[in-house]
Order: sequence, then C-alpha cells, then structure tokens
Amino acid sequence: MQPAPHDHETILEVEAPRVKFGRGAIAEVGAEAAAMGVRRAALFTDPHVARLELTERARRSLRDAGVDVAEYDGVRIEPTDASFRDAAAFAADAKVDGYVSIGGGSAIDTAKAANLYATYPAPFERYVNAPLGEGAPVPGPLRPHIACPTTSGTGSECTGIAIFDFTAHDVKTGIASRRLRPVLGIVDPDATRTLPSEVVACSGFDVLAHALESYTAKPYTRRPRPATPLARPLSQGANPYSDLACVEALRLLGVHLVRAVEDAHDDEAREAVMYAATLAGIGFGNAGVHVPHGMAYAVAGLVHDFVPAGYDADHAMVPHGMSVIVSAPAVARFTAPTAPDHHRRVAVLLGASTSLHANDAGDALADALAGLMRATRMPSGLRALGYGDDDVPALVDGAFAQQRLLANAPRAVGREELTALFTAAAAYW
Amino acid sequence: MQPAPHDHETILEVEAPRVKFGRGAIAEVGAEAAAMGVRRAALFTDPHVARLELTERARRSLRDAGVDVAEYDGVRIEPTDASFRDAAAFAADAKVDGYVSIGGGSAIDTAKAANLYATYPAPFERYVNAPLGEGAPVPGPLRPHIACPTTSGTGSECTGIAIFDFTAHDVKTGIASRRLRPVLGIVDPDATRTLPSEVVACSGFDVLAHALESYTAKPYTRRPRPATPLARPLSQGANPYSDLACVEALRLLGVHLVRAVEDAHDDEAREAVMYAATLAGIGFGNAGVHVPHGMAYAVAGLVHDFVPAGYDADHAMVPHGMSVIVSAPAVARFTAPTAPDHHRRVAVLLGASTSLHANDAGDALADALAGLMRATRMPSGLRALGYGDDDVPALVDGAFAQQRLLANAPRAVGREELTALFTAAAAYW
Repeated sequence: MQPAPHDHETILEVEAPRVKFGRGAIAEVGAEAAAMGVRRAALFTDPHVARLELTERARRSLRDAGVDVAEYDGVRIEPTDASFRDAAAFAADAKVDGYVSIGGGSAIDTAKAANLYATYPAPFERYVNAPLGEGAPVPGPLRPHIACPTTSGTGSECTGIAIFDFTAHDVKTGIASRRLRPVLGIVDPDATRTLPSEVVACSGFDVLAHALESYTAKPYTRRPRPATPLARPLSQGANPYSDLACVEALRLLGVHLVRAVEDAHDDEAREAVMYAATLAGIGFGNAGVHVPHGMAYAVAGLVHDFVPAGYDADHAMVPHGMSVIVSAPAVARFTAPTAPDHHRRVAVLLGASTSLHANDAGDALADALAGLMRATRMPSGLRALGYGDDDVPALVDGAFAQQRLLANAPRAVGREELTALFTAAAAYW
Repeated sequence: MQPAPHDHETILEVEAPRVKFGRGAIAEVGAEAAAMGVRRAALFTDPHVARLELTERARRSLRDAGVDVAEYDGVRIEPTDASFRDAAAFAADAKVDGYVSIGGGSAIDTAKAANLYATYPAPFERYVNAPLGEGAPVPGPLRPHIACPTTSGTGSECTGIAIFDFTAHDVKTGIASRRLRPVLGIVDPDATRTLPSEVVACSGFDVLAHALESYTAKPYTRRPRPATPLARPLSQGANPYSDLACVEALRLLGVHLVRAVEDAHDDEAREAVMYAATLAGIGFGNAGVHVPHGMAYAVAGLVHDFVPAGYDADHAMVPHGMSVIVSAPAVARFTAPTAPDHHRRVAVLLGASTSLHANDAGDALADALAGLMRATRMPSGLRALGYGDDDVPALVDGAFAQQRLLANAPRAVGREELTALFTAAAAYW
C-alpha cells in the first residue's frame, strides 16, 4: 500500500466465492442446490470423472434433495470453441435452471460457458475476449453454478474465467466476466485419492504458477485508475490481499507438492495441495496471472504430437499446468529485478537457503522451480515437449496475442522479450 | 487440518463479502448502487458522520448516478431495540429499494436491522438470537446494502450480525444471518483522518480482539458435524482461512496501532489499521469471537455512569472496543494452555520477545495487551470503568447469557470461570 502517483489506481477489490472445503463436502451439493432454488441441474463431467465414487455421491445428494439431474459426461479435456458450443446446446435443450460441474478446470469452464450461452444465446464470438472475440459484457446474472473441482489445480471454482482452444485461430483464449464466477465451490479432498501422480504434478504446478504469478504481477497501484468504477479489471495486479493468500499457498506447496505427487495415499499432502489450490484461486481471482500463462496458451495451442502420461487424452495435448510451468523458471529470472524481495521469499519457501541474498533471487527461484519439476518428472523444457528453435516465432506470435495477460506483468513484454524467454525455456537441465 | 474424530466437523466454509479498499473508494458508491438496480437508497449516518466531507462525497456520488437518497442521520451510538425499530419504520415509510450505511458498527448494524424489518415485517423478537428472541431464520434475500465503515474497527461490513442493547433485558445481543451481510463494503481510509484518537484506540482494540479471539477460538474440527449442511453455524471456530487473515491483522496492529492512535496525520498507520480491520472482519466473519466479546456485552449493558472522551455520546456508555479489550488480558491467560503456540505467536507479533517460550505465552500475551492498552490511554481494567466487586455477579449473569459466544471458546466457560475472569480484569496495572 505505497502511495500511488496521481491517476494511478488507489483502490483494490476483494472478491471471493463462497467455498466449502473438506472431506465429505461433496455430499452437501444437493442441499445447497436446492437452497438456491435449483430444480433441474445440468451436471458436467468427463467420462473418467463420471465413473468416480465421488460423482455418484454428488448424484445421490442431488436426488435426495429433490433436484433433477441432466448429465453431460462429454466434457473435453482442454475444451475448444466447438466443445463449449456443444455443451451449451445440451444445457439449452435440457431446460435446466442450475449447473453443477465436477472435474478439473475443463469441466468447470465448460459449465461456465454452457450457462452463459444457454442463458443469453449469442453468436459464439460475442463474449470471447477481444481481439479474437468482441469482448461484450454478459447481459445479466447467470443461473447458479456449483463447481466441484477434483484436481487440486485450476482454481477455476474461484474465478470468472473460462479458457478454451479457439481452433480456427490455433490459440487458447477465454471469456472473462464476474458473472461467470460459480456461486459456490465445493472442494472435497477425497477426490484426489484416485488421481494419477502425473495429474497431481501438472495441476499442482498450475497452482504454483497461479500463486507465483499473482505475487509477482505488476502491483495494482501501478495500473491506471479505471475510467469508471465498473471498468476496473478482474485482474487487478498484485495487492496485499492476494499476496497473503498466494504466499500461504506457496508455503504449503513447498512442504507438500513432491509428497503429494509421490504418494497417492499421503492424504495430508494431497489435502494441503488442494487447499493451496483454493487459496491460490482466491489470490489469482483478484490479482491475475501474467507471462507464464500467456506463454502457456501458445505452448498448448501449437502442440505437435505430445501425449502426456496419466491423462485420458485421445489427442495430442500439453496439460495446462505443464504448459505453464515449463516457462516459469525463465520468467522468474526475467521478473526478479522488479521485486527481488518477493522473489527471494518464494525461493526460500520452495527450498532455497534462508541465507539467500535478494540479488540472487531470480537464479535461486529458477533453480528451485526446476528442482521441483525434476523431482516430479516434469519435462526439462520446451524441447522435451517436442518444440524446436523453428517453433519459436510461432510461439512468440501466440503469446504476444495474450495482451491481457502480458499487461499484468511487472515489466514490459514485447516480441523480443518473448523470443528470449521461449529460447531460455528450451531445457533447464 | 488435523483429522477430525468421527461425528466432528470436517468442512470449513469460506465466505467473504465483496470489499473495495482504498483512498477515494467512497466516490464509487453511486455507480455500485446503480449497478445493483437501486433507485432509491436509505442512507444511514449519525449526526457527526452526516457532517463529514466523506459523507458529502457519498451523497454526490449517489446523486450523480441517479440514485435518490432518503437520509436518516439519527443512528444511535450503541443501538437499542427501540433505535433499530425506529430505523426500520423510517425505511418502510421511505419506500427504499437499497441501503447505504456510513459510520461505525452502529450505523452499519442499524441499516442491517432496518433492511430486515422493512423487508420482512415481524414482531421485533422474531429474528433476535435465542434465547432472548425466537432466532427465526430470515425468510429470503434482503435489499442490497452497501456498508461504508468510518472507524476502522467493527468489521461489520463483513459480517451477518447486527448487535444492539436489548433494553428490557439490560444486555447486548444480536441478530445473526448470512442474509444480513452487506453485498459490498466500501472502506475508504480517508474517513480515519478526522477520527479522535480515543475512537481510533477503541475501534482498533475491537479489531485486535476480533483477530485474537478468532485465532484462539475452538478449532472448527472440534465442533460437532451439523445435522444438515445449512445448519452449519456462521461462527465455525478457528480454521486455516480465518487464521491467515487474523495473523496478518495482528501483525499489522503490532506495527501500526499505537502510531495510528498517537498521530491523526500518520496516514500510513491509520490506513494499515483500517486494512487490518477488513482482514479481521473476514476472519471473524468465518470463525467467530468468544469470551472477551461475551464479557463485553455484559460490561457495556451494565454501564453505570462512565462517559468516554472523544465520543459524541450524550449518555453513559462504554465504547464497544473498550468493553472488549478490558477483559482480553485475563482471557489470554485462561485460553493460552489450549494452544500455547498460537498465543506465543500473537504475543510476539504484539511486541513480546522472539525468545518467548510457549509455556509463558499466556502471561506474555496478557502483558503485551496491557502494554498496548496503557500506551493508548485505555482504562486499566473494570475498576477504572466504575465497576466494583459488587458488580461481578451481575456481570457474570450477563456474560453467561451469551452462550453462542461462550460455545466458541476453546475451553468450557461456566459461571465459576466467568467470576474468576471478571475478578482478574479489575485492574492490570
């Protein structure tokens, strides 16, 4: 809370969804939906999640509360514009008055999009972020949506953002509006017991990136004051509230992430990572991410033939968390000079020596991140994902299109900087 | 997040209001009210607040946004059942569709009550906490209420609680429902520039007590599992989310409280205390307070002839924060054995030596609290407020009636314990 220069932002907004966190919480979904007046809910899952005991508990809870369920188990992992449209058509046909999503960010984001287009039908581009879409505001409130994450990663239950692959443009983008935010997140760590270790690792690194990017984002007091109060962006930049949530998330990850990946039976570690995901979701829902997520959209969008272990994917794809973390060490070196003490603090939380000097924070944080990646068998860099030097120009183009994210970085990021960052991200060991 | 015994709570709920925090934020009240569909707002202030420049800025903002204002500047400091009823009658007559409150907890709580009784008219006892009232649930959603605190203290903008003096019973009690929670808090630290130092001290100690009591409350995992999901109490007990907010609030108070009391021009310190109030409000809104607040209701309700400096009061009264903090050192000694490390952490944040041993945490925390009270010219105990040994039985009766608060304490608290605590609170120096 440094004094802001004239015409710079002085106000921060704190907004968090209602969240229930704890073992057994999924059994409360029915009573909550009924209390919101939902009589017929669309339930969004994918074919894997549809078979989980947790999902059966949710169905039973909804049924016991007198809520009809129209189930859509065809959520695409890493959704596309086509898969969003298909989900919206399902919801419109099923005439539902509420939404429940169970799964990773893909399921939750798909339910957000279905809710939006079924409630306010429009050509698909209408609500998509500019410049690829029109970026039109959502006209009014949506139906209640209860999001039940199963992957301790995306924090999508806390945000008003739905991310998808815009196939025609070969790039990831999204729809962003406060109105997309679920009214309730139900986070039941029982969900993580059956997760493959690769999924825990990828989603855990997504959490780590949410917290790290929010904490190192451009401080909100360096953003221009919005023209009107309602024009303040969802991604406000680093601020004392998001800092608090993100630093705690990073502390928990430093202690628990490797343990949670290594041992599916380490309930304490998997629960702690899931709680870190919720905290990081609250943090980045108010602060916003920046360069690693911007680069990740290009990395995921331009995938050649990488098929990850541990995922039910029938197509080449880079899991979101993997696509993000692969650039994070390079970006840490790039952003450290803007806030050496913050970078130092994170490096220490992730295992660097407490005698670390702030001047060395960028290298130490990059090394700590690479050490965690190596310990959890993540790729050593872009080369291991199948990208070569020839891909850099296209990757730069894809990332450069993410101006909303790049604007939230603590330093100016142009094509030249992105070229250097993608080059530095080729291999860390 | 220790494993909970069978039949004990496993789920925590995180719920925070939307809050805008920062200098100049009051100028956004009109745009926000209009965006919520408010066309005619009841504005609740007291005669002192009504004359502030900040209040004039709020009126202008509402007018510029096309929102009609019906102003009620008769809020009673430390409201009563009669003053709540009067405010509700005003709101009903004025046919408003929204509420704005500017002031301390008294103004915000009065607007909550007016909103409730004007929206769902009922005999006054209907919604009042049992056993003094019927504790009936609020039947449905209330009108939007934007709360603008001016005293960096109560955190009422974050909670679903309205406190008042139930005159016929000579005791403070309240109305509690999630539906009473304002939809938006606008916290503009400009408001604190004109506050008398006594008001900064009293409200700052209320903040401190919110954070301390929430952090030392009975952990949520020691509460029985609720019979139904919707029966989970607003005051859940200590939990990892409220702990995070409360520890940060205590850290800020340790650095800034004395400075903020001493110097009205120390903008940094007054802003930090106001931010701590918001954090503590989020924390205690999810965790709940316990013994010092329970004792405070009796202390304030049984006031003899104490009239505080710095307040516009025309009647004997003990400011809320003063009535709370006067018992806090005695209670710290009482609760320390239940969580020595937590008490040690707070003692260090408030100035105790970092070499403090956890076994000595209760005494050290009591001393640190008494030191802050002395440094800010607070009374040395109940005797300085005019209470003698003869008053103890009546004080015990009044506090014992606050079973909702006592149940949130980390140890059983009966009449015997309350007698010992009121006796220990007679004088700290």
